[in-house]
Amino acid sequence: MEQAWTLEQAREADASDPLSHTKERFFLPEGVLYLDGNSLGALAKAVPPALARLAEEEWGGRLIAGWRECGWMEAPERVGDLIAPLLGAEPGEVIVADTTTIAIHKVLGAALAARPERKTVLTTSDNFPSDLYACSETARRHGAELKVVERSELLAAIDESVAAVEVTHVDYRTGAVHDLPAVTATVHAAGGLMIWDLCHSAGALPVGLSGNEVDLAVGCSYKYLNGGPGAPSFIYVRRQLQQSLDSPLPGWLGHERPFDFSAGYEPAAGIRRFLTSSPPIAAVTALEAALGAFAGVTIEQVREKSMALTDLFSSVIRQREGSGLELVSPGEASKRGSQVSFRHAAAEAVVSAAAGKGVIGDFRPPDLCRFGLAPLYLSYEDVYLAAGVVAEVAASAC
Amino acid sequence: MEQAWTLEQAREADASDPLSHTKERFFLPEGVLYLDGNSLGALAKAVPPALARLAEEEWGGRLIAGWRECGWMEAPERVGDLIAPLLGAEPGEVIVADTTTIAIHKVLGAALAARPERKTVLTTSDNFPSDLYACSETARRHGAELKVVERSELLAAIDESVAAVEVTHVDYRTGAVHDLPAVTATVHAAGGLMIWDLCHSAGALPVGLSGNEVDLAVGCSYKYLNGGPGAPSFIYVRRQLQQSLDSPLPGWLGHERPFDFSAGYEPAAGIRRFLTSSPPIAAVTALEAALGAFAGVTIEQVREKSMALTDLFSSVIRQREGSGLELVSPGEASKRGSQVSFRHAAAEAVVSAAAGKGVIGDFRPPDLCRFGLAPLYLSYEDVYLAAGVVAEVAASAC
Repeated sequence: MEQAWTLEQAREADASDPLSHTKERFFLPEGVLYLDGNSLGALAKAVPPALARLAEEEWGGRLIAGWRECGWMEAPERVGDLIAPLLGAEPGEVIVADTTTIAIHKVLGAALAARPERKTVLTTSDNFPSDLYACSETARRHGAELKVVERSELLAAIDESVAAVEVTHVDYRTGAVHDLPAVTATVHAAGGLMIWDLCHSAGALPVGLSGNEVDLAVGCSYKYLNGGPGAPSFIYVRRQLQQSLDSPLPGWLGHERPFDFSAGYEPAAGIRRFLTSSPPIAAVTALEAALGAFAGVTIEQVREKSMALTDLFSSVIRQREGSGLELVSPGEASKRGSQVSFRHAAAEAVVSAAAGKGVIGDFRPPDLCRFGLAPLYLSYEDVYLAAGVVAEVAASAC
Repeated sequence: MEQAWTLEQAREADASDPLSHTKERFFLPEGVLYLDGNSLGALAKAVPPALARLAEEEWGGRLIAGWRECGWMEAPERVGDLIAPLLGAEPGEVIVADTTTIAIHKVLGAALAARPERKTVLTTSDNFPSDLYACSETARRHGAELKVVERSELLAAIDESVAAVEVTHVDYRTGAVHDLPAVTATVHAAGGLMIWDLCHSAGALPVGLSGNEVDLAVGCSYKYLNGGPGAPSFIYVRRQLQQSLDSPLPGWLGHERPFDFSAGYEPAAGIRRFLTSSPPIAAVTALEAALGAFAGVTIEQVREKSMALTDLFSSVIRQREGSGLELVSPGEASKRGSQVSFRHAAAEAVVSAAAGKGVIGDFRPPDLCRFGLAPLYLSYEDVYLAAGVVAEVAASAC
């Protein structure tokens, strides 16, 4: 299935790449091949002028009137609507607010309140630790139990005791992709609610939230959406459920009429009820500008290139004898996200040595080298060259 | 007590004002007298270059290494330590994170878990609505009752059934200041925990958190701290309590060793246990730069000028016959925050007409005109002139 790539072929692939033009939308340092966009996405060129305009013209020039005149108050829904098509969601189903883990506390709390008779929250042992902490605490608070199963046992563990399943669509270590349609359908058949963490999915591959009738989802915006360090999370709530779910963290911005300043809480009619406080405008401004890098691009195009890049990367690595790099991501591109991870006895040294040669990857303890391949700003040539460097330093580190 | 001010006297007061130089630290639009810094603080000149440096040099230039090399990971505590002296708190007692209402959910949830046998949360009916929503939901979740009393009944209502009292130090409508030492001491004598919302206090008047042995506090950073629209909140936890309180919203950044990525949650040793997720770096960067405007300034100096400005403003208003403006803030400067509020039959029209003449105040339904006087960027002359405009348009609106 994998071809033996040459530099020439990589250049040919770039020449016919329909996304070759989007690299120009990013600022990337000279001499760096950045394979860590799944930790922190690169800086879109539109961001610095957007931040300057926000500060100098809007905040500095309009002051308090900015809330009315500059679209700040509507920012959570407006930017949510920019993310929605990347997730296969409808307008009005996504807002931008808070952080991913706070968002998990919100949606899981809402789900458990909607299934009070059920006493199990189900997740997998390879879920991101912060998800496990939030699920454990929320389950405890509702008198429920967090049941943690191996990834391979997930489908079989879904039964009618399960109030909600919360798992991360793309594993942060291996890049393995859950079968979202199958898991969601199984949870629904058992009468539970499905929550997907899309941190490593959003902007990297199609998710199909509406098509799969997913109930709830969350994710960060600082990986493939390129929102910047600590950029806010997004929250998806299926439209049909919005009126029947309540945020466990109510606040005035989620009120139907916040500027009535009324003593009693009345949740807003739509997705806004999952807001709590004023949106973080500097962060949302950076994110909104960054999302412009997806203009004219479909998530299917992104996915097609992403799969080709991960194939290219792992193929070049495997061509190098004696690298000591053992693929831990699924071998089939359709079963992994936009990353490739390898086990290596000296993983930390490999990542460090590659960085010394300008190839930025990521070390995940105890022994993983993780490489994220963001299709919007990496060319086939970039990935070919980066893989060669990684294979070389890995062989030297054996 | 109030003197009858003249323009000449206002100018003399400016000439001897030890804070006259800090106005230069802010960008203020031409022709605007901005009396709404208690809604959104003005733009400090240091902010736009700080945001540009963050984007272009740090995020754009260092990419993922910014977390290690640019102080991003330590930002919640570092910026918290900049706010601490303004609150009379010690280093390591304040972090910057989340939003004010999320912060209330955190600290009240922690307080109730620490007083499980007590079933009352006490607050006042004039508390900010979002505080009431958060307190109500958190109380309900703990099987407790939210008891809402009139402001004047607060002290008498504190008894040994009370797990925690949560009130806003400076009333957002009237500017009335609670007697923080007395309320805190009474709560402690009854064995409860005291939570202060300092949204309208931080950066405006001394609070004395350590001196008064306050247990917990929260507040926003976008009013007198000038952090920008939707800037993050701060959380104060008294050092002696940090080991015994647990955040009800755990997340990986509050883990003792986040980068172990361990499945079990172990709260960090100090204030960091109240963190949940990655800090919002763009927002924190703006706030950190804005806090530079307090360099060389004590909160006591701010308070002294603030009291003089609120006296000046209300004095000029009262000198004008037939303005129809009725003072609803306490008449004594020491009993109000850095704002003056008036009732007027046509309050919304008054605020609107004043804005038309460049004097930006705030309308709070149903009939309040609210004016915030930020000592760092308002001169005595500014306030004298603004009061004249407000009195004039109010008289015309009668």
